[in-house]
Amino acid sequence: MNEQQRARRPGGRSARVAAEVHRAVTELISERGYGSFTVGEVAARAGVADSSIYRRWGGLETLLTDVALSRLNAQSPMPDTGSLAGDLRTYAAQVAREITGPDGLVLVRLAVALSTNGEQGLRARDDLRDERTRQLQSMLDRSRDRGEPAPDALTVLDHVLAPMYIRVLFGMGPLTPQYVDDLVDRLL
Amino acid sequence: MNEQQRARRPGGRSARVAAEVHRAVTELISERGYGSFTVGEVAARAGVADSSIYRRWGGLETLLTDVALSRLNAQSPMPDTGSLAGDLRTYAAQVAREITGPDGLVLVRLAVALSTNGEQGLRARDDLRDERTRQLQSMLDRSRDRGEPAPDALTVLDHVLAPMYIRVLFGMGPLTPQYVDDLVDRLL
Repeated sequence: MNEQQRARRPGGRSARVAAEVHRAVTELISERGYGSFTVGEVAARAGVADSSIYRRWGGLETLLTDVALSRLNAQSPMPDTGSLAGDLRTYAAQVAREITGPDGLVLVRLAVALSTNGEQGLRARDDLRDERTRQLQSMLDRSRDRGEPAPDALTVLDHVLAPMYIRVLFGMGPLTPQYVDDLVDRLL
Repeated sequence: MNEQQRARRPGGRSARVAAEVHRAVTELISERGYGSFTVGEVAARAGVADSSIYRRWGGLETLLTDVALSRLNAQSPMPDTGSLAGDLRTYAAQVAREITGPDGLVLVRLAVALSTNGEQGLRARDDLRDERTRQLQSMLDRSRDRGEPAPDALTVLDHVLAPMYIRVLFGMGPLTPQYVDDLVDRLL
């Protein structure tokens, strides 16, 4: 069990600290946006020592991606419906709901903030992307294991996720269920 | 001739002021990113009065979109090659070059900054999007006038522009000429 898994074990001081720190980050993001607060401010609000944050996460960039991933994984876990079309439709609908929500576009905002934040920011952005891509890939692999032909993860990103992100970013919503299904059908 | 057209007429005090203000904004963006400077700071650096900026642009949001549009129009004017495939390939290659450049992703960064900037920010973002969409639409209209079947502007956005933006944003470059051409071919 690594440090992060231990931190997520229900109960225990470590888990409580992680929960408090995540809550503090989420509040600070919604109050000020990304890139407008420090590790010290997160620590103060969470009621923990700065050193606890540095020890567990290494720095603000890694902490931000950890919070974003936890949220994404809770809001849009990879579905397992038994068919690729079902999985992709369910996943696309989840993402559409998530990014059109009150504080949607977390991934896009965070990626923009991290990309302008030096080497450490870029590494954190890459970790975030790789983790989500890996999850998407497992869903596609399950489908291939069942003998269904499946597109690769990057093609799903290009033609299902990217259009939804860009439409929301530029205020071209709402993403209707019909539109979202059409993106998946066009891909398959 | 409206205020903005007059401002862009070559020569004349008005044009010089506009050029100085644009230069000041471009410098401040590259030094500090979007959303980290005021109209007063732009005015000071450009050597003009705050009131000149408010009179011409109304506020920071409109000024930022004006600068972004001027830059985009200079870097990626809508091509007119005589065929839809030629136009789309040329346009997509221009956009790919522009967004992978040293300060690329200006549209994405600006849209993120404007979206978190209240009603006035959202209006400026919508103007920016509508102006670029209008330009893309004229290119597609020319193609329809020649009797070529053409996709609509939103479909080009979804399946050619959005994938490139998202790949660059998440550090999944480079956008090879082969990849960019494939996006266009897949669409047509």
